[in-house]
Amino acid sequence: MRRPRAREFGIELGGMEPGRYNSITDVDGVGVGHSTLIIGDDIRTGVTAIVPHQGNLYQENVTAAVDLFNAFGKATGLPQIMLEGVIETPILLTETLNTWKVADSVLDYFEERYGGAPSSLNVVVGETNGSYLTRNFGRHIGKEQVFEAIDLARSQKGRGPTPEGNVGGGTPMTGYGFKGGVGTASRIHDCFTVGVLVQLNCGGKEDLTIAGVPVGKEVELSKPPEESSGNSIMMIVATDLDANSRQLWKVAKRAAMGLARTGSYGSNRSGDFTISFSTGERSVDELVEAVPSKGDGFMNPVYKATVEATEEAIVNALFRAETMVGRDGNTRYALPLDQVERIFEKYGRHWNRP
Amino acid sequence: MRRPRAREFGIELGGMEPGRYNSITDVDGVGVGHSTLIIGDDIRTGVTAIVPHQGNLYQENVTAAVDLFNAFGKATGLPQIMLEGVIETPILLTETLNTWKVADSVLDYFEERYGGAPSSLNVVVGETNGSYLTRNFGRHIGKEQVFEAIDLARSQKGRGPTPEGNVGGGTPMTGYGFKGGVGTASRIHDCFTVGVLVQLNCGGKEDLTIAGVPVGKEVELSKPPEESSGNSIMMIVATDLDANSRQLWKVAKRAAMGLARTGSYGSNRSGDFTISFSTGERSVDELVEAVPSKGDGFMNPVYKATVEATEEAIVNALFRAETMVGRDGNTRYALPLDQVERIFEKYGRHWNRP
Amino acid sequence: MRRPRAREFGIELGGMEPGRYNSITDVDGVGVGHSTLIIGDDIRTGVTAIVPHQGNLYQENVTAAVDLFNAFGKATGLPQIMLEGVIETPILLTETLNTWKVADSVLDYFEERYGGAPSSLNVVVGETNGSYLTRNFGRHIGKEQVFEAIDLARSQKGRGPTPEGNVGGGTPMTGYGFKGGVGTASRIHDCFTVGVLVQLNCGGKEDLTIAGVPVGKEVELSKPPEESSGNSIMMIVATDLDANSRQLWKVAKRAAMGLARTGSYGSNRSGDFTISFSTGERSVDELVEAVPSKGDGFMNPVYKATVEATEEAIVNALFRAETMVGRDGNTRYALPLDQVERIFEKYGRHWNRP
Amino acid sequence: MRRPRAREFGIELGGMEPGRYNSITDVDGVGVGHSTLIIGDDIRTGVTAIVPHQGNLYQENVTAAVDLFNAFGKATGLPQIMLEGVIETPILLTETLNTWKVADSVLDYFEERYGGAPSSLNVVVGETNGSYLTRNFGRHIGKEQVFEAIDLARSQKGRGPTPEGNVGGGTPMTGYGFKGGVGTASRIHDCFTVGVLVQLNCGGKEDLTIAGVPVGKEVELSKPPEESSGNSIMMIVATDLDANSRQLWKVAKRAAMGLARTGSYGSNRSGDFTISFSTGERSVDELVEAVPSKGDGFMNPVYKATVEATEEAIVNALFRAETMVGRDGNTRYALPLDQVERIFEKYGRHWNRP
Repeated sequence: MRRPRAREFGIELGGMEPGRYNSITDVDGVGVGHSTLIIGDDIRTGVTAIVPHQGNLYQENVTAAVDLFNAFGKATGLPQIMLEGVIETPILLTETLNTWKVADSVLDYFEERYGGAPSSLNVVVGETNGSYLTRNFGRHIGKEQVFEAIDLARSQKGRGPTPEGNVGGGTPMTGYGFKGGVGTASRIHDCFTVGVLVQLNCGGKEDLTIAGVPVGKEVELSKPPEESSGNSIMMIVATDLDANSRQLWKVAKRAAMGLARTGSYGSNRSGDFTISFSTGERSVDELVEAVPSKGDGFMNPVYKATVEATEEAIVNALFRAETMVGRDGNTRYALPLDQVERIFEKYGRHWNRP
Repeated sequence: MRRPRAREFGIELGGMEPGRYNSITDVDGVGVGHSTLIIGDDIRTGVTAIVPHQGNLYQENVTAAVDLFNAFGKATGLPQIMLEGVIETPILLTETLNTWKVADSVLDYFEERYGGAPSSLNVVVGETNGSYLTRNFGRHIGKEQVFEAIDLARSQKGRGPTPEGNVGGGTPMTGYGFKGGVGTASRIHDCFTVGVLVQLNCGGKEDLTIAGVPVGKEVELSKPPEESSGNSIMMIVATDLDANSRQLWKVAKRAAMGLARTGSYGSNRSGDFTISFSTGERSVDELVEAVPSKGDGFMNPVYKATVEATEEAIVNALFRAETMVGRDGNTRYALPLDQVERIFEKYGRHWNRP
Repeated sequence: MRRPRAREFGIELGGMEPGRYNSITDVDGVGVGHSTLIIGDDIRTGVTAIVPHQGNLYQENVTAAVDLFNAFGKATGLPQIMLEGVIETPILLTETLNTWKVADSVLDYFEERYGGAPSSLNVVVGETNGSYLTRNFGRHIGKEQVFEAIDLARSQKGRGPTPEGNVGGGTPMTGYGFKGGVGTASRIHDCFTVGVLVQLNCGGKEDLTIAGVPVGKEVELSKPPEESSGNSIMMIVATDLDANSRQLWKVAKRAAMGLARTGSYGSNRSGDFTISFSTGERSVDELVEAVPSKGDGFMNPVYKATVEATEEAIVNALFRAETMVGRDGNTRYALPLDQVERIFEKYGRHWNRP
Repeated sequence: MRRPRAREFGIELGGMEPGRYNSITDVDGVGVGHSTLIIGDDIRTGVTAIVPHQGNLYQENVTAAVDLFNAFGKATGLPQIMLEGVIETPILLTETLNTWKVADSVLDYFEERYGGAPSSLNVVVGETNGSYLTRNFGRHIGKEQVFEAIDLARSQKGRGPTPEGNVGGGTPMTGYGFKGGVGTASRIHDCFTVGVLVQLNCGGKEDLTIAGVPVGKEVELSKPPEESSGNSIMMIVATDLDANSRQLWKVAKRAAMGLARTGSYGSNRSGDFTISFSTGERSVDELVEAVPSKGDGFMNPVYKATVEATEEAIVNALFRAETMVGRDGNTRYALPLDQVERIFEKYGRHWNRP
């Protein structure tokens, strides 16, 4: 039985409409590819690639920004994004100890796929720590997986529905004590689209809140989840709105508000980073006209979309991820959806099943 | 009929215990004083003073930090706090156009109450825009009101229960389309106390969320609230834990997560600032021992306390503020608590009435 | 005998050409006005206004940025510039304790000169501490002086040559142990103009370096300068190049490099702030074409112009400022230009006297 | 003939005393190791390790800070230093495309030398682009070189005099159009030591300034230096003073002032980063007593030492680096010291030859 996404389950988060796939790939041109590596009893890892467009990003940069909300993390490439306001490579998400091998492999990708790597390249790799389920010192993610992920992100398939849960970089991750991983969601507006993809690996069970319902407190388990040694979330926000990097920086900051809605208080050793970018396909003019305001006030619907889509992407990661047994028999249990159903009824939630 | 605070109404936010007064004044030494000015039909204003301790702050600074989450605001004194990590004056909160007269009056306070103002003083004044209810160009808040507020904050009374709602700097403010103003709350832990005070003036009705319940969407009004021309929140976080300014900066960032829980998405022309400070009365040693962790990991309970207390302070502002008619007949209605009661029941909330 | 500016004296700083007035007013539309107040033996103060254009700045904002290099200062309005990337009022520079009265007076200016103040206004006032020469608790700078300064900045005269030295906000200031104050300079390029104005109040005598010559160490005084209680510099950078706020932020950061060339090491209790803005009159297209580069690389000549003009503005402040006796007989001596001439010869400098 | 360091040549920069080796290794416990790789005609590269102490840094972190003055660079590990205020690995400096292989090799170092790598590690690697002289796509720097460099840094030899110029990460680098590379210098004070090490790869010939003398403009070459494709400087500041991370952040910001003194204007595509750390061996108490001041004012001598040592480290890199021929016959000429001698005489500089 395939586990449903939040919306298939009947949960609506916020009031704006999701896009066709309810995925970051609803932003035209954006592609996602996962490479997942499961070997024997103790390797549960992978890498996820997000491409802002289908071409050579070094030749055609996209406008971008970063929010270091809770910067306990090893993501590469962020300072230069903050300075120059652009991204010049695909964005890769992986398991923490693979960060640098993954970054290094992106050079090979440029060399082999684009006929030459530049002499300097600001490679962007985000990470969360999956060592509870995977033996991570081996650093199994290298050139093969990186090529697979980026190639897929640059294909027709990569621009369609996005696999979630135990895939790609999200493979061994934990969310609010349950099995976490990759989640995505989107929001559409007459004048723009916003899509969010997260690699969820943070939070404690007691804090989990879904649509305002204290699910974490209410779910009964035979024993409490063991603590992970790591605890982080990478949030990627894409939009087609041709906002500048200062405006995208504000957009990035709203992702932490979506995270907050799911119950996180930003625990200390968590790397809660957001990277936002724009494909630049939709001029801001229409939106400026639709939302009369001084200055950047027209961005309000974009912020709202970002908060909603981030919240839903996190919930989707929990809904789609399945129980996984990893190294040393360590086990992360999937969020028990039957309990969630009862809890939601107790809290007077009206289902909106498709 | 006195309107109840959230907890008197039976609403508990988060799981940690509040302090004696459930106020920022639960942090030992911290005092709060309001001066409220209501004149005729069109002046509805005031100023609130928060003193981190009862002495001369210029002579005995407190460690402090700032988070500029959404910096559309005119607060004074913030850059120097970011650099030096200390506060050297009381913190004043007022209506936006009074900001500078209030700051200037603090010099007089030092001259007259402490026998001399220094030749340079980093006065800290926060503001939100109350012009929907008060005619603000007149800038009625000056020396008299500033002295009254600080003197009160430095009295026995100022260290007790804190008046909320339509008082001090919060007098003319709006929260989520309802009457807003001042709110406060606290959390205690074996090893520290955290107290938060907010001057609430932000949010749209549809977004208001209380304890996860979509109260804003459910409340029925005969007509929607008119928009204010301003939209901001000042959040002040006090603790007795002797954290350093870097740690207090992390604490400050968590206040925005409490704000997010009440439904805000950080609208663009909103000044959402947090100032955090420590009275330094409790060594971190006990907490470090209680929460085994590398680095700053021991701060997690402080973050959690900050998120919870910020959320509750915001809700308290809405619960305690009464309907106010101001300039040109403009009216802000109090959050209708009878409706809130029915909505909470609909959403399966269990009352915990004292 | 009028003291010469650096260039009149024969000192050239850097290699780019200055504009017509070698002043911030070489940026078309920019005006400067000083109001200077000297009363009796102990009041030596004033205020300087810089207008980015001659109209109503609230109605027509200019793009802007801020660098908080060494943020020991009380400047108002900076957080909102950092967020929104615009300035919506004239920029005022004054003596530290007058900061808030000056800010408050700008509201009156909008009310009286533009037929109405908005209900919220992000007033920008910078300050340095002049209390060595002026009795500053009196806060003598108010509406009258602010109006005089802004009116002058908005006149034909305000757009011509800019008075330097003991004028406006610079009246009581100290630079490198000598009499400091206001200085300005500009650089022109085929594709843009950059102008800088400083209010110089920082540095120690031994550190003063002019065109690489260790003037401070070489100048002989009968006794060393007494220390001031304050120590800061405000640097304002104007350009006509239509750069965005991120690019202007980079420009602002270069002003501290110009400051460094004059020997400063950024002493701790110094407020070394830079505000940069663009009048937007020159498209970047020409410059982008003239300086082939990826990304923001075309900005290099703008950075160079900023470093040079900042260095020269600082030196101009020292050259033009005359010895001043202030409160309690405190005296700041003008940089002795006869000694400077001999020192420069000793260090092999070639005069380029006009 | 061995090329002299600046001080051996007779040039003194600033007024404070250098330490025993005039190197970052004058800070007790700090070690430096270079691994240099020169193969055939086209590989000219290497890696430099700096260890803040001789033990396991993950087990015993040092307090640290970062300044992103001009963040066009790919350095890893910086966001977490900014958040947590500590460094938990050696600092490695290398050629840009080797950044990630070097980072990855540090994991192996922990595994093999310390008996186990943690499941998450914030590896700190800085880089500058050496592709003018070395064929960098090959990424020749890996485990062998990283081990050699760190092992050397952790040896008795690594704590002595530090090789400069064409060594380690500095091997293929360019400074102000001349051959650049590694340079170091230190300053001692009764109450602390400051040491700086730079990997110099930035600046244009015309801008080079040494001790205030416009050496770059005066040096005559048969043809102007070709432009490099990259342009950056990594600056590492060490001190034994037990300053906190906020104070070390201020220290880091002063390195850019030392850079400015050598003529840089911070060109756009330059990664000008500073990492500062403290070994914590000297309490601040003595310095606080020696420099009476409020707040952090006692740090002034530390700032001054940092500016001076950074300036001298840059000049040392230029003095010690020898002409190098690299890939495709590309050649970087050493700064011609005979010309420098004549230029200094022309500019009235008094030699202080040992």
